[in-house]
Amino acid sequence: MNNRQVRLKARPQGIPQAEHFEIVEAALPELAEGQVLIRNIYLSVDPAMRGWIVDTAGYSAPVAIGEVMRSFASGRVEASRHPDFVVGDLVTGMFGWQDYAAVDGESVQRRISEQDLPLSTSLGVLGLNGFTAYFGLLEIGQPKSGETLVVSTAAGAVGSCVGQIGNTLGCRTVGIAGGADKKRLCLEEFGFDAAIDYRSEEVDVALAKACPGGVDVYFDNTAGPISDAVLKHLRLGARVAICGTASIAGWDPIPQGPRVERHLLVKRARMQGFVVFDFVQRYDQARTKLAEWVRDGTIKYREEILDGIEYAPDAIAGLYRGENLGKRLIQLAPADN
Amino acid sequence: MNNRQVRLKARPQGIPQAEHFEIVEAALPELAEGQVLIRNIYLSVDPAMRGWIVDTAGYSAPVAIGEVMRSFASGRVEASRHPDFVVGDLVTGMFGWQDYAAVDGESVQRRISEQDLPLSTSLGVLGLNGFTAYFGLLEIGQPKSGETLVVSTAAGAVGSCVGQIGNTLGCRTVGIAGGADKKRLCLEEFGFDAAIDYRSEEVDVALAKACPGGVDVYFDNTAGPISDAVLKHLRLGARVAICGTASIAGWDPIPQGPRVERHLLVKRARMQGFVVFDFVQRYDQARTKLAEWVRDGTIKYREEILDGIEYAPDAIAGLYRGENLGKRLIQLAPADN
Repeated sequence: MNNRQVRLKARPQGIPQAEHFEIVEAALPELAEGQVLIRNIYLSVDPAMRGWIVDTAGYSAPVAIGEVMRSFASGRVEASRHPDFVVGDLVTGMFGWQDYAAVDGESVQRRISEQDLPLSTSLGVLGLNGFTAYFGLLEIGQPKSGETLVVSTAAGAVGSCVGQIGNTLGCRTVGIAGGADKKRLCLEEFGFDAAIDYRSEEVDVALAKACPGGVDVYFDNTAGPISDAVLKHLRLGARVAICGTASIAGWDPIPQGPRVERHLLVKRARMQGFVVFDFVQRYDQARTKLAEWVRDGTIKYREEILDGIEYAPDAIAGLYRGENLGKRLIQLAPADN
Repeated sequence: MNNRQVRLKARPQGIPQAEHFEIVEAALPELAEGQVLIRNIYLSVDPAMRGWIVDTAGYSAPVAIGEVMRSFASGRVEASRHPDFVVGDLVTGMFGWQDYAAVDGESVQRRISEQDLPLSTSLGVLGLNGFTAYFGLLEIGQPKSGETLVVSTAAGAVGSCVGQIGNTLGCRTVGIAGGADKKRLCLEEFGFDAAIDYRSEEVDVALAKACPGGVDVYFDNTAGPISDAVLKHLRLGARVAICGTASIAGWDPIPQGPRVERHLLVKRARMQGFVVFDFVQRYDQARTKLAEWVRDGTIKYREEILDGIEYAPDAIAGLYRGENLGKRLIQLAPADN
């Protein structure tokens, strides 16, 4: 039994493409004392993963050439030499893009307890995507009932969750997404009050129509021209939560854009970056609430599940091409739920 | 007896120059019931005044062509038809660039109570400049003891006050100013721990030396290349208080600069604009504290007093040329203190 691994082959400039990875067959890892062997069922594909590869200063050391691509994954314990885990446990953590991972028991992120919900949710709405939406919106954006909330990549795993939380808070929600399908998803599935297709509409003009009183909170997943347009519509005391920069192909050198200072001054507005990992102590709180919202239908989610590890190398590039509808996952083995 | 007035003659693109104003002799205003007649002693010259002239969306309606230039001023009541004021009262408010102003008693900002301190302080360290430093630093920058505070236009009326408040809070203070004289002033008069002359030094390199652990709080009066350099040195959780944009000649069209999103993301940092007028309810609190600091020598201030209204038309442009050392005032009549 072999372990297929997606390894980093070359360091990309900008968005990682298929050619920067290779799929290698490796032997099954030996289990050391204190370790568990995990059969990965779902691999996560996240926009943030490009940041784990690039060499420019980031949150953590970049994945080395030849190393298995770092990623979140959820799977089943196949063997355990750790007292806290038994065979059959469903777990999630940084298990990498591979069939099997041998990891220290302590580095398993958690045992999955929401057995009534699909395992895939552990990587999306009940995982980092949901937490990112939850903490970014509530802690950084701090919307109040009646305020106008604008979200970019609004049909995505994070953006759709942000919009739906905004709806429950009583905000007017406006989603910006690329393409007619995603716009429709925003309106019909995720309940945004208005949606803008930035590919076919003039964002500036559409925002003026969708946000006649201006924008109180902007949850920014893109940076770039979409954000430039939103900033022009900020209201007094507005808050911009910077979550991601999907529209920026690369940060070295730093790309130019319109300066933001005057918007922030005149509108007494705030731009603030955040990283979900800073809220790790409160993940359980967020997960409990998000699971409740998923169960009662307050939050809907979409997934796009690619069937097989051979989809992995091109999967990040595909996110940046905007081709996915919903949280992108790669499935390696059957899930029981 | 005539009233010399500095009126707006033409609307500038960018920084207002001498030719955009004209000095006109007008008749003394008639006093209506409820009004007071004020003999202006000091006129204020503030960088923010350019924003009161330009036609682009700002905080308030722009000064009209032919109108007296809006400004803060301090003076003496010469005649009163308002029960709260008597002849001889020293007052401060928006009296404009003119010898005499007839204003409604209600629109007088305050009667000056710090009779032991020079009247000129009412327009600087005990006026908007001091309040701007006080609220911008404490409310927006929120520095803590031991943190590193960087200030641009550090030798100016606001910046010097920011640095000195930072010193009392136990911050490491680093001032950025233009020219050797201002740098020396920062170090010798205002007590900054380090100072950078952006005209003769590479700001990026000098910052790395002056802030080896990074920048926790940046009080930004300039925007532009100085800010671009500071942003590269932000520390985790840094706060940028955007107070002014002195280095930007004009905002229409919005000038380009390096995008800030990634700095804010990676550093979980915040940029926030503020306008001192939003703190008007708390001016008395700030003034009491600032006056205490001035009296006990904690805060020193510099003034540059131009003698005569004929200096007014070029005075704002001069600020942006960086030619003043300290708070710029125009004196029209003798002050008793």
